[in-house]
Formats: sequence, structure tokens, C-alpha cells
Amino acid sequence: MSKYHPLSEQEAIEIARGIEGFFPADAALSSKEIGDGNLNLVFHITDSASGKSLIMKQALPYAKVVGESWPLSLDRSRIESEALILQNKLAPGLVPKVYKYDPELALTVMEDLSDHVIMRRGLIDGTVYPKAAEHISTFLANTLFFTSDLGMNQQDKKVQLGKFINPDLCKITEDLIFDDPYTVSSNNNYEPSIEDAAEALRTDASLHLEVAILRDKFLTKGEALLHGDLHTGSIFATPESTKVIDPEFAYYGPMGFDVGAFIANLFLNYAGQEHWIADEAKRREFRAYLTNTVRDVWTKFEAKFRALWNEHNVDRISRDTPAYQDFYMNRLLQDAVGFAGCKVVRRIVGLSHVADIDTIPDAAARERAQRMALRIGTALIKANRGVRSIEEAIDAAVTAAEQR
Amino acid sequence: MSKYHPLSEQEAIEIARGIEGFFPADAALSSKEIGDGNLNLVFHITDSASGKSLIMKQALPYAKVVGESWPLSLDRSRIESEALILQNKLAPGLVPKVYKYDPELALTVMEDLSDHVIMRRGLIDGTVYPKAAEHISTFLANTLFFTSDLGMNQQDKKVQLGKFINPDLCKITEDLIFDDPYTVSSNNNYEPSIEDAAEALRTDASLHLEVAILRDKFLTKGEALLHGDLHTGSIFATPESTKVIDPEFAYYGPMGFDVGAFIANLFLNYAGQEHWIADEAKRREFRAYLTNTVRDVWTKFEAKFRALWNEHNVDRISRDTPAYQDFYMNRLLQDAVGFAGCKVVRRIVGLSHVADIDTIPDAAARERAQRMALRIGTALIKANRGVRSIEEAIDAAVTAAEQR
Repeated sequence: MSKYHPLSEQEAIEIARGIEGFFPADAALSSKEIGDGNLNLVFHITDSASGKSLIMKQALPYAKVVGESWPLSLDRSRIESEALILQNKLAPGLVPKVYKYDPELALTVMEDLSDHVIMRRGLIDGTVYPKAAEHISTFLANTLFFTSDLGMNQQDKKVQLGKFINPDLCKITEDLIFDDPYTVSSNNNYEPSIEDAAEALRTDASLHLEVAILRDKFLTKGEALLHGDLHTGSIFATPESTKVIDPEFAYYGPMGFDVGAFIANLFLNYAGQEHWIADEAKRREFRAYLTNTVRDVWTKFEAKFRALWNEHNVDRISRDTPAYQDFYMNRLLQDAVGFAGCKVVRRIVGLSHVADIDTIPDAAARERAQRMALRIGTALIKANRGVRSIEEAIDAAVTAAEQR
Repeated sequence: MSKYHPLSEQEAIEIARGIEGFFPADAALSSKEIGDGNLNLVFHITDSASGKSLIMKQALPYAKVVGESWPLSLDRSRIESEALILQNKLAPGLVPKVYKYDPELALTVMEDLSDHVIMRRGLIDGTVYPKAAEHISTFLANTLFFTSDLGMNQQDKKVQLGKFINPDLCKITEDLIFDDPYTVSSNNNYEPSIEDAAEALRTDASLHLEVAILRDKFLTKGEALLHGDLHTGSIFATPESTKVIDPEFAYYGPMGFDVGAFIANLFLNYAGQEHWIADEAKRREFRAYLTNTVRDVWTKFEAKFRALWNEHNVDRISRDTPAYQDFYMNRLLQDAVGFAGCKVVRRIVGLSHVADIDTIPDAAARERAQRMALRIGTALIKANRGVRSIEEAIDAAVTAAEQR
């Protein structure tokens, strides 16, 4: 890795110029570092004359959010580019195209999606994405099924799992999602006004049991190659198009973790709408859109996953054991619901928050949204092992949301 | 691997002579190939003058049992030697010492245990091993706990898991244990007299569901570094000493698989005693010894595992969530019971059998033992997810055994 150094904007331009056949030879390229994440530099390289552009993402050897003191392996850059390439094969058009990967610079050059909006931003602005459930359910069904023991050779899968061992990034999830919110930790970050609710998370033994069981699945259950961080900030969307980005947390884990991530962030926006839509009828309507999207993404995912199971299964046992499919799908739903709950909770009291709630300017509304999100999150966690349908999970969440 | 070739006895002697300080310089070594397995050459090298001896185990690049047509990676030799070295650290004295490992020859030179008897052989002969439950429970508790997320750093564990990815040997288990016995397969091997019982295995949908769920755990649940083949033929024993050998199937899998393997083989011997002990009172007594050993190995394992959990846990969550320990141990028991059942069944109708039953000379007694084993195996499989104590599992097995 001797060549590695964080790139300057000028260096980024030079590298972009080297991508064969992309920019006109005489293009006057400009570069802008647009990274808002904590782990990477992101350069947006444009040629205003041709209108062409691309994105260069370079991994940093530490997490910016806590300064240079949290070192992170640059290998995540390899994992991200390999995951993107694989996802593009399995779910064509739903992730950015990769133009080039440079392992020494930990650099991935990829399709520019700046005609899209980060879905989180769009939802905060009250945008409806009528295709999102369709697209995300396809992304989930295809990437999870075809990287699992159901959809690929089971010996090849073991080797593939070995290529996506991702200790540093998994550690972030293990700490920030499954540990810190339930104990006193310097990583935690919440306003004093909700101290009582945060304290309740730290003293609820039945909640701790469920989180421990869910964390055990995250630690041990290598079902499929996950995206690993599939929140609405990892989705670029327009009403017509949906693109999943940033799979640097990719590893072999429990499928429900990806499904739950998307659902969790719909519920976080649901809570945030406490502020963003002032008109009560419109707010109710948008929240119905959000819960419909939760229902749709699960229902479509389940239908697509079962169809793949029935049509593309490489495995005699799963093909010949019909009751196993029902068992498997119900357990997957339960996992998704539990992980969704964990992901809601951590965005309120843990290190990393979401704009849906944190940027609410009014303190009282922000607190109402935070408390609502915590009620939703804990309700989903507690419901997880008993849930038999997505309807039950939505009911549990909405009922908890409405308990003021 | 250009140096690789199956060794002659003379070559084995030359290599043994090279182990520094082991044999006297002028020793007249003799070598005997004693491998009765299907996958390896095993040389017993002795110096009759000094009485010193050692074992050299060389992996073959195919499975002998089906000729050269079933190729097997020589990497299993690395896995076996690394597993032995690690097991000897975690459970000192309970595995043979490794003197040398030669990766190019896929050769492990290790302690000679020929003063011990293969435990399966001893049990067939009616030998009681009063220390076996104590030793095997220590082996299980120490090797499983300290290679799991409970007993080692969770990031290091992911890297270690990557070093023990073992597709070829896992494939043998996946096919022979979890697949073939429940379908028409050319690998299956049983006598026409039990065709009705074999047919019943192929048509029992509720059995298939349980086997599919157990197989899913074998495929996906990377809890701990397993031995992977812990039957009584992998145990050298005397009344005072117990040594676990042959961890070439080692990989990161569900802990219950190792616990269940040992239990399964006690029950196989239980069924085989239909013949070996003619006197009914003595037979009853030996069977009580076997079920007591099942009880003891679980009870001691559970106590030791809980003690390690309480005293050597590296993990805040498991330490601070008391209900999680109970949940975890009960699930581990359930897994062990289910896997035990699968391992009993496959030894009756699958490719690979056990001497406890196959070498019964009298056809009627052999058939009675086979049918009894199948009843025990299916009872354990069907009981697995509902079992709350080892007593319940033993009851289920013994009740099934007695249904003639």
C-alpha cells in the first residue's frame, strides 16, 4: 500500500482523465470533494462541455467522525467495489456502474448519480417514491438469494464468504447498533431531554435479551452477502429510478439485516414527520405512504424471493421441502423486524443520527419525534420473535408510535 | 504443491528421522501404513530399541471410498494441523501433540497414541470409560467457547473463521448427513431388510423440515471452530485418558454439531448392544452407562461452558444479559439433540456406517439394532426444537428405542 495517500482534487482529475474513452481527450475537467460521510473522500469530476461526469470514492484509513483515532482497513474499498460489481450483475441497474478500481489507492471510480436525490433527503421533503418498494425489493431478493446457499453452489459460497470478511466495518455495527445504545458509552449521543427514555433502554432486561439474540445472528449467521448499511442515506432515488450505493459494510450476514435497515429508516422518517409536514391530514397521508412502503417492500420482497426459490434454486433440500420455505420466510421476516427496531433505536441515542429527526429545528417537536422513534424501535425489537406477518409488525410500530 | 506425492513407507521413515531430537540417531526405524480411513495415509513409525514411536498422517487428494473420482483439497491437511495445534492450546492433553507439519506434502507428524484404543472399538467390547464424559466435555467447552464470539475477540474470530473455510470436507457432511438419507441416492447403503424404514425417511415431511432447519445451521451458523467429525471413531481412549483425533473436518459451524456427534455415537452403540452383550441384565446395565454418559457429557459441558461464560467472557453483552446465557444454552442443547439424530440416521442408511452395528454377525440382531437406531435418530430429530433438558432428549431416545 506504499502508493496510498489521500488524493488531492488535482490528482483526482488526473486519474479521471486516465479512464479510457470516458471524457473527451481535451476536456477541461473540474473536481469537487463532496464527501459528507465519515469514512471516505468523494470526488465529483465533471466536464461541463460534454456534460459527462463521474464519482471517485477513496477510502480513508480512519473514521473521520472520531478523528484519526479509529483506524479502518482500506480493504473495505476492495469489498465495496467487488460488492458493487456483483450487485450490478445480480440486480442490474440498481447500483452505480464501476468504471475502475485501484486497490493501492483504495479508490473506486463509478457512475455519477447526481441527477438522483438521496432518498432520506427526498423523504424529509415529503417526496413520494412510487417505484422504491419495487426496486428495493428486487435489489434485496436478487442480491440475497443469489449469494445464499439457496441460489449459488454451496461450496463456492463458502469461498465467497471468505472474500467478504470485513472485521473493521462489522465492528462499527456491533458497537454502535447492538451495544452502545443499551449501556453507558461515550459513543452515545442524545439530548438531555430524553435522558429518561435513554435510561429505560439501559435497564430493560427483556429488551437486552432480544438485542443479544439479534446481535448473535449478526455475529454468526452467514446467510448471504449483505449490503450491510441499507438505510435511506445509501439510496439515490428519483420517482422513476432507485440506486443503492455505498456497500462498504458488505459481509456475509443474516438477510433480515438488510431488509430491516430499509424498513427502519422509513419508520425514522415516519417519526420525523412529527415536524416536517405541519398539516395533520397531509402528515397522516404521508405516514400512510411510509407504512404502505414498509408493507410493499416486504410483500414484494417475499414474493420475489419465493419465486426465485421456486425457479432458480440450486439446492435439492430447499426445493423438496415446501414447509421449509414458509419457515424460512417467517424467520426472515422476524429477523427483519428485530433488526429494524435496533436500527431505529440507535439513530436516536447512539453515535450516528439521521437528518429526518436531528435537523428538526423545534426542540419540542424534535423530542416528540425522538420519543416516538424509540417507542417504535423498542416495539419492533420486542415483537420480533413473535411476528407472523408484516401487518403485525406495522401494527406494533404504529400502535407504539401513537402512545404519547 | 509440486513436491506432493503419496509417500512410501521408506520415505516416511526418512522424514521421521529428520524430526530433530525425537529418535536416537542410529535408530532402526520401521514403518507400517495403518490407515483404515478413506481420506489419508497413516504411517506408524517405531523404534523398537528405544520404544519411541510417532504417527505421520498424509492427506490423499481424493476420497478412497469412492475411488479417485471424489477429489478432495489437500488444504484439509493444513486445517487439521492448525486445528490440532489450537485445540492443544485450548484443551491441553486432550489431542495428540503435533511435531511437524509439511504443507507441500500435506503431512502432519504427531504423537503416537497406540497405547490407547479407538473408543468405538472399546465400547463394542463393553469397555466402560469413566473419564470420557469429563474429558470430552472439557474438550467441547474449551474449544467451542474460546473460538466463539464469547471467548475471543470478535474481529479476530472473523479472520480465524476465514482460515478454516473447508468447502470439500463440509460438502461430505452436507451430502452424507443432511441430504442422501432422505432421498433416493446412489450414495445410500443399507440392507434390503430395512427398505420400509429407509422409505419412511424419504417420505416424512415433518422430518424433512427439521433436517432442513438443522442443515441450514450447518451451512450458515459460524459459531465456533468445530472438530467437525467428533464420533467415537475419532476418539482414542483408555479408562484414564481421552484424546480427540482427526479434526480435518474443522470449520466454523454450530457448536451443537460437535456435542451431538459424540451423543449420536453413544446411542449407536446403545442400539448395537442389541447383539454385543447377550446377557440381558448386563446389556441393560451397559445401556444405562451409555445414557448416563450422554447425560454426563451434556451436564458437564453445560456447567463448564457456563463457568467459562461467567469467568472468561470477553464480551460485554453476554456478560450483562443473564437471560441470554439460559437462552443460548437451551438452543445449544436443542441443536445438539437435532444433530445427534441426523448423525444416528445417516450411519444406518447412508454411505458410511459404524462397526457398532455393521459388524453384528447375526442378521436378525443387526436388523433390530438398525431399526432401533433409526427410531432413536428420528425421535431426536423430531424432538430437537422442543427439548428443554437433556433428560427430555434421553427420554425421547430411550422411549423410541423400546418401541419394537
